Amino acid sequence: MTAFAALHVPGSPLLLPNVWEFGVAAFLAAQGFPALGTTSLGVSAAEGEPDGAPSSKDATVRLARRLTALDTLISVDVAEGFSDDPGEVGALAAELAEAGVAGINLEDALGDPVRHAAKITAAKERAPGLFVNARTDTHWLGQSDTEAAIGRGKSYVDAGADGVFVPGLADPADVERLVAAVGVPVNLLLIPGRVTVAGLAGLGVARISLGSLPYRMALAAALRTVEAVRDGGELPLAPPSYDEVASLLPENH
Amino acid sequence: MTAFAALHVPGSPLLLPNVWEFGVAAFLAAQGFPALGTTSLGVSAAEGEPDGAPSSKDATVRLARRLTALDTLISVDVAEGFSDDPGEVGALAAELAEAGVAGINLEDALGDPVRHAAKITAAKERAPGLFVNARTDTHWLGQSDTEAAIGRGKSYVDAGADGVFVPGLADPADVERLVAAVGVPVNLLLIPGRVTVAGLAGLGVARISLGSLPYRMALAAALRTVEAVRDGGELPLAPPSYDEVASLLPENH
Repeated sequence: MTAFAALHVPGSPLLLPNVWEFGVAAFLAAQGFPALGTTSLGVSAAEGEPDGAPSSKDATVRLARRLTALDTLISVDVAEGFSDDPGEVGALAAELAEAGVAGINLEDALGDPVRHAAKITAAKERAPGLFVNARTDTHWLGQSDTEAAIGRGKSYVDAGADGVFVPGLADPADVERLVAAVGVPVNLLLIPGRVTVAGLAGLGVARISLGSLPYRMALAAALRTVEAVRDGGELPLAPPSYDEVASLLPENH
Repeated sequence: MTAFAALHVPGSPLLLPNVWEFGVAAFLAAQGFPALGTTSLGVSAAEGEPDGAPSSKDATVRLARRLTALDTLISVDVAEGFSDDPGEVGALAAELAEAGVAGINLEDALGDPVRHAAKITAAKERAPGLFVNARTDTHWLGQSDTEAAIGRGKSYVDAGADGVFVPGLADPADVERLVAAVGVPVNLLLIPGRVTVAGLAGLGVARISLGSLPYRMALAAALRTVEAVRDGGELPLAPPSYDEVASLLPENH
């Protein structure tokens, strides 16, 4: 079992902060988080591309290569793998694994589950040590059908997935059913006001992602900062100093 | 006078939020800010490069090209111009102007003022309509010598600069002296707790930059978000929704 896989403990879940650029990852890594994920929304938005668009693949890979220099494990959100071709998704998995990435998150966007399973198999064939987290969008894009999530999840595990991710799933009974059914670590999305880390831990969840929440909060912080300055109000948060941020950058190490 | 130059009004300063990636710029532009600057610390940190390093030039230009698609004027922080060669700085200015950039910020990092003046002249020769904001680091890196700031500032104006920027300058009497001496719009840095927008306006300042503050605040927001989730506390700010952010991205327009 890899060090990253070992962090997925049902009942004592890995809290995975999602990042979108190097500086925020270095800042969080310096706080001691053992692993970081990326957020496709953040990476795509930072680049000026639609979320998960194939045109954001280069930015995703470039960021992944930089993040693996940090003292933390990295899982990369590759959306749908930026391709319909399982061979291309396998090649991407191999490239990321070679760069030192610990895991990927691969979503079905509720498309054909057979094609998604083929992508998972291709990724595991090309990069056996890469933790492949299979996301199904039954609850994010679909009708919140937990039977469908279980069916898709099990087929993805049969295809080689190391974990199953169902963003949007929050109902406690449904979470327990999914955890019992799939036989691999279950990952859920932290939805403020609907679930808590402690609550999901108690249901046997093994990993909790923040998704785009930190990125969206960063946008709010930037706006609130400008408004506070303009209006003569208090700054919303206590920021790190210039020197603290500069000390996180490569040549200053 | 260009539309960007016209925003520099002594006593009624342009408040220039500084951005480091597309999404935050699109989010701020949507709030109606008439102009945005970039922050070399943010752009460099996002890319995983030291602040203002020549290796961050490509990221700076790439970002600038994307930002000019937004409905706001863009001023680009080019640090020292990523080169000691005035000809190369002139070429960079021409490239940015052609991409639709309204202004650049060019800093002397307290190096040879004659060389810095030559860079300014080269930039204005190659891009006459580009607002060249000449930054001197007498107070940021030096001994806070306001006479030196005035001397350097005047020489940069003689070389063609459209504005003078002295980050770190805050003493009211010194600000007034600088404003009276240089004869072009003066830009200062908003240093929380030391100056206010209203205070600087009253001293005749024409532009106020936020520098790396929004970027550093974004890092704080990301960390505080993860900590709040982990500890079961309240989120620090109210973030925009996923859909609001996604709607800001190019193909969704």
